[in-house]
Amino acid sequence: MQLTMHTDYALRVLLYLAHFPDRRIGTREISTAYGISKNHLVRVVQTLAENGFVHATVGRSGGVELRRAPKDICIGDVVRATEASFRLVECHDAVNNTCPIVPVCGLKGLLDTALAAFLAELDKQTLASLVEPRSRGKFVQLVSH
Amino acid sequence: MQLTMHTDYALRVLLYLAHFPDRRIGTREISTAYGISKNHLVRVVQTLAENGFVHATVGRSGGVELRRAPKDICIGDVVRATEASFRLVECHDAVNNTCPIVPVCGLKGLLDTALAAFLAELDKQTLASLVEPRSRGKFVQLVSH
Repeated sequence: MQLTMHTDYALRVLLYLAHFPDRRIGTREISTAYGISKNHLVRVVQTLAENGFVHATVGRSGGVELRRAPKDICIGDVVRATEASFRLVECHDAVNNTCPIVPVCGLKGLLDTALAAFLAELDKQTLASLVEPRSRGKFVQLVSH
Repeated sequence: MQLTMHTDYALRVLLYLAHFPDRRIGTREISTAYGISKNHLVRVVQTLAENGFVHATVGRSGGVELRRAPKDICIGDVVRATEASFRLVECHDAVNNTCPIVPVCGLKGLLDTALAAFLAELDKQTLASLVEPRSRGKFVQLVSH
């Protein structure tokens, strides 16, 4: 069980932006800081922009910045927006399901309940609650070397 | 976010066996019933046997049967045994992690909590609670056509 790299990177971008609230950040800076692909990061920023989490502008003075305060960015909402699918097993995909026992199987309902519990935990936290103001200096140090 | 096909098939095998408690079942019968690869199913049965959920014997009268009563097979335990990894994001893999912000990042702890909530829901149910005795006839009908 894994989240996609897209979700992983999206959360990292938001954490980065939350630590530098006073300026627009270029995607190259973020990709260098984390040592991850800039091309992938551009797609991640696009997803975050489409879902209203960030504002991205192009050009010389362009860059990415948070569109809402960190306290208004719910982690559950981010994961719902960036994760491609929550089809835990085949029968969650009604169109392509081939498993014949769906009408009498209790598994789908149980997995739905478990997924809801997973997301409910993420819904309890915002970007602000993941960013300790007192550790900002340490964060800057970690992403700068 | 998905569970592996290995986990999906493992749960289906257990559900099948729970519906036919009175005989050993060949893997061919199960693969035909679900329309899934017999080769993959053999590996799934091996994982289930290694973890004490089923007893598998080879030969003419061989086959697979539950090793414990359905009420003693916890769904959370099955998923823990069959899922290859619960590394939700890169930093859950301490050996291969490249993300530099781990020392100041609250995300790993949050995802650990969410994963625990997911598994806690699965721990509440056993194979028996997923198998309705009154729907056995319907199950047999669904896997027989």
